[in-house]
Amino acid sequence: MEIANFGLYGLGTMGSALAQNIADKGFHLHVASYKPEDTEHFVANAGAQKPMFTGHRSLADMTAAMPGPRAIIMLIPAGAAIDDSIAQAKPHMRPGDVLIDAGNSDFHDTRRRAQALEAEGLGYMGMGVSGGEEGARKGPAMMVGGTESVWTTLRPMLEAIAADFEGAPCVDRVGPDGAGHFVKTVHNGIEYADMQILAETYGLMRNGMSMTPPQIGDVFATWNEGRLQSYLVEISAEVLRAIDPATDKPILDMIVDTAGQKGTGRWTAIEAQKLGVSASTIEAAVGARIWSAHPEARHTGQALFEVQRGEVALDTAQLEQAILAARILSHSQGFGLLSTASQEFGWSLALARCAEIWRAGCIIRSRLLTEIAQTYEAQPATTILAFAPAMVPLLETTLPALRTVVAESIKAGHPIPVMTAALAWFDGMTQARGTADLIQGQRDFFGRHGFARLDGGTGHHGPWDS
Amino acid sequence: MEIANFGLYGLGTMGSALAQNIADKGFHLHVASYKPEDTEHFVANAGAQKPMFTGHRSLADMTAAMPGPRAIIMLIPAGAAIDDSIAQAKPHMRPGDVLIDAGNSDFHDTRRRAQALEAEGLGYMGMGVSGGEEGARKGPAMMVGGTESVWTTLRPMLEAIAADFEGAPCVDRVGPDGAGHFVKTVHNGIEYADMQILAETYGLMRNGMSMTPPQIGDVFATWNEGRLQSYLVEISAEVLRAIDPATDKPILDMIVDTAGQKGTGRWTAIEAQKLGVSASTIEAAVGARIWSAHPEARHTGQALFEVQRGEVALDTAQLEQAILAARILSHSQGFGLLSTASQEFGWSLALARCAEIWRAGCIIRSRLLTEIAQTYEAQPATTILAFAPAMVPLLETTLPALRTVVAESIKAGHPIPVMTAALAWFDGMTQARGTADLIQGQRDFFGRHGFARLDGGTGHHGPWDS
Repeated sequence: MEIANFGLYGLGTMGSALAQNIADKGFHLHVASYKPEDTEHFVANAGAQKPMFTGHRSLADMTAAMPGPRAIIMLIPAGAAIDDSIAQAKPHMRPGDVLIDAGNSDFHDTRRRAQALEAEGLGYMGMGVSGGEEGARKGPAMMVGGTESVWTTLRPMLEAIAADFEGAPCVDRVGPDGAGHFVKTVHNGIEYADMQILAETYGLMRNGMSMTPPQIGDVFATWNEGRLQSYLVEISAEVLRAIDPATDKPILDMIVDTAGQKGTGRWTAIEAQKLGVSASTIEAAVGARIWSAHPEARHTGQALFEVQRGEVALDTAQLEQAILAARILSHSQGFGLLSTASQEFGWSLALARCAEIWRAGCIIRSRLLTEIAQTYEAQPATTILAFAPAMVPLLETTLPALRTVVAESIKAGHPIPVMTAALAWFDGMTQARGTADLIQGQRDFFGRHGFARLDGGTGHHGPWDS
Repeated sequence: MEIANFGLYGLGTMGSALAQNIADKGFHLHVASYKPEDTEHFVANAGAQKPMFTGHRSLADMTAAMPGPRAIIMLIPAGAAIDDSIAQAKPHMRPGDVLIDAGNSDFHDTRRRAQALEAEGLGYMGMGVSGGEEGARKGPAMMVGGTESVWTTLRPMLEAIAADFEGAPCVDRVGPDGAGHFVKTVHNGIEYADMQILAETYGLMRNGMSMTPPQIGDVFATWNEGRLQSYLVEISAEVLRAIDPATDKPILDMIVDTAGQKGTGRWTAIEAQKLGVSASTIEAAVGARIWSAHPEARHTGQALFEVQRGEVALDTAQLEQAILAARILSHSQGFGLLSTASQEFGWSLALARCAEIWRAGCIIRSRLLTEIAQTYEAQPATTILAFAPAMVPLLETTLPALRTVVAESIKAGHPIPVMTAALAWFDGMTQARGTADLIQGQRDFFGRHGFARLDGGTGHHGPWDS
């Protein structure tokens, strides 16, 4: 049974854009916001869409006034605001109603909230939404966490407003309760790594190859016609080529080099640590943003050590290949994290569906993701994406360039932490016999931890044990 | 006022060793363990120390029977067992009594427990203990978190049993409630990085310089006479030179290359993420242990890509310098984490005291730590250790070798993730103008996040904004 009555709470940038998208697709929408005047303003300025909206003074008023069964999408800040809103809406909800958190909530919170509402017979959905304001307005990628029955009731509306990839809507139920928000978190972690890979490349071209931002932008634009085709390369080209009207200089030369973060990259790194999964490329990307937040220290450091950064003997074809290799490796870590979380939380995540959802509408959409989707469709049990049949030849072709780029950059003093971490992970995960035998020896020496022997058995001690 | 009545609960490896140490120093000790027969066995086998111990059948019995004021040290597994033990002891405790958690508890738990007991007028101390079994027996390094008054009552006993560094006992109150366990956690994070740096060097010498474990052990032993002098280099030399009696081969050749972990390295990485501090060397060390736990995948990867690892054109003098540079950088990240946590939690950590405590008794004791202690004594407000006057010339001397070692290793395919991460951090933190301007441009392009301009103001948008 479909739900016919939709509400949306929170008319900020994302909420307004999503409301307009929903109305475009022919769904009438009840709307409310934290401040009643924002709702009045939104409806008054809705132009031709005005008949599609009914404004309410508060979430409680809206919930009480809507005919049932109803589904209310919340697009408000993560955290306490969500719990407050649930408390306001719940007294007016009846079985069959659904609350949808479409923000960037911590998936642990979503699990807790879904379990609490489901125990009272109410529906709850945690939905990751990617694509920024433009995506929300024209078609976002959406990752749904909730029960099968809640998904069934909302599916027609969500498929109507989702991004479209060659006829397939970029929305699906990926699992129960917090699964949608978790997948969105990992999406953002991969996004952090991809953005940082491009920033590292920009730095190399600028500081090691004496290219200007517009020249670099032209190269990025060319890359976007080939194997690196992706939204992030496309917009990076635009950003690199953009001229500041006030100074007539490249806009990048006017932007402070301190990157903000809203926490989802950090969450990805923390969850990977908790799950015992290596997400070193995402960690490195979060780390680079942390470094960027300390400009005074960086100035001090450069002056103290009289740092000179040298030219790098690299060409743009090598950089193109290096980016692709690093991108494959960072995606492999991200999908590995999804795979482990799926087992840990009993979600049965369909990794092919995650990749398919990400093919359009979202920030990390790319030609590579289309190939990754095909990989998981063909081999759903893939645990290490980088070792999948479709990826091995791609890596064999591109990895030598990544190795050269990393080695040259290190020699010349250019920090490229994500590309470096990607290569280190590849080298570590392709070393049959590692070096942790020494670590086990040390641990047994100082703490009697014991070790496993290659000829069998565990809990052995070394000859130093008296 | 000193406390004269001591108890110890938990007679495992660490608890037994610490009990013997306390008795050695002339303190009578009440003892109990989870199983009464373990206590009987411990007392019966105490030899000449037997008169120093009074055994009890349970923690509750012991607490009730001891004359007050009393201090009871718990050496039991972290987690629920601590809460259970507090519940058993508390009904028998009176104002002036102190419970001491000397295990590896999560400092968040210690904060919660300390606040709960202090609210009832009871004393609670979270104490990090380093040095393994031998340290506990002969003199550990101890980091105390608790009130000044609790520290005062316990100080004479703790100073008597602590390790000694040139006459100074390696124990002190570093701050309130969870501060001691936090400092111990960071100690362990630094330990992870240091162990991994040595394992990476071993791998390079073995796989890239065709040296045998005993030959490598001889080099390590030489290093231990110089600038790299440290407990971990010393025991690594012994492990590398040890011969397996069963096979007459180097013992390392019999040890499975999968490293265990007990969580404190991971905690350090997670807390660093939560605090927005870059601890990339510690993250990389935890990551390397994760990789080591997947031997089948590593075998698959090596076969799939037909990996050949090459010789490296390096000498042992370069490796010695590279280790020192990486060690300085990883310690700098660890102390940076302590510094930020101190501000965040209002602990007023004395970083000089942390470094001083670590000069003897603990696993990371080293000549470098003695120099670090001097640095913080001279400049207590140091925020980035690597930029301190005593460290700059050391890094200037050794960093070129680290750069060469990393570049050569990457070219030849040897994974050295911690040394690589250390160098990337140095290069990032000495780059006055970074590359996050592109990331800010991307974020504004897709999400209207806004950016700060170099000519002033925040919340600007690029010319792509319509």
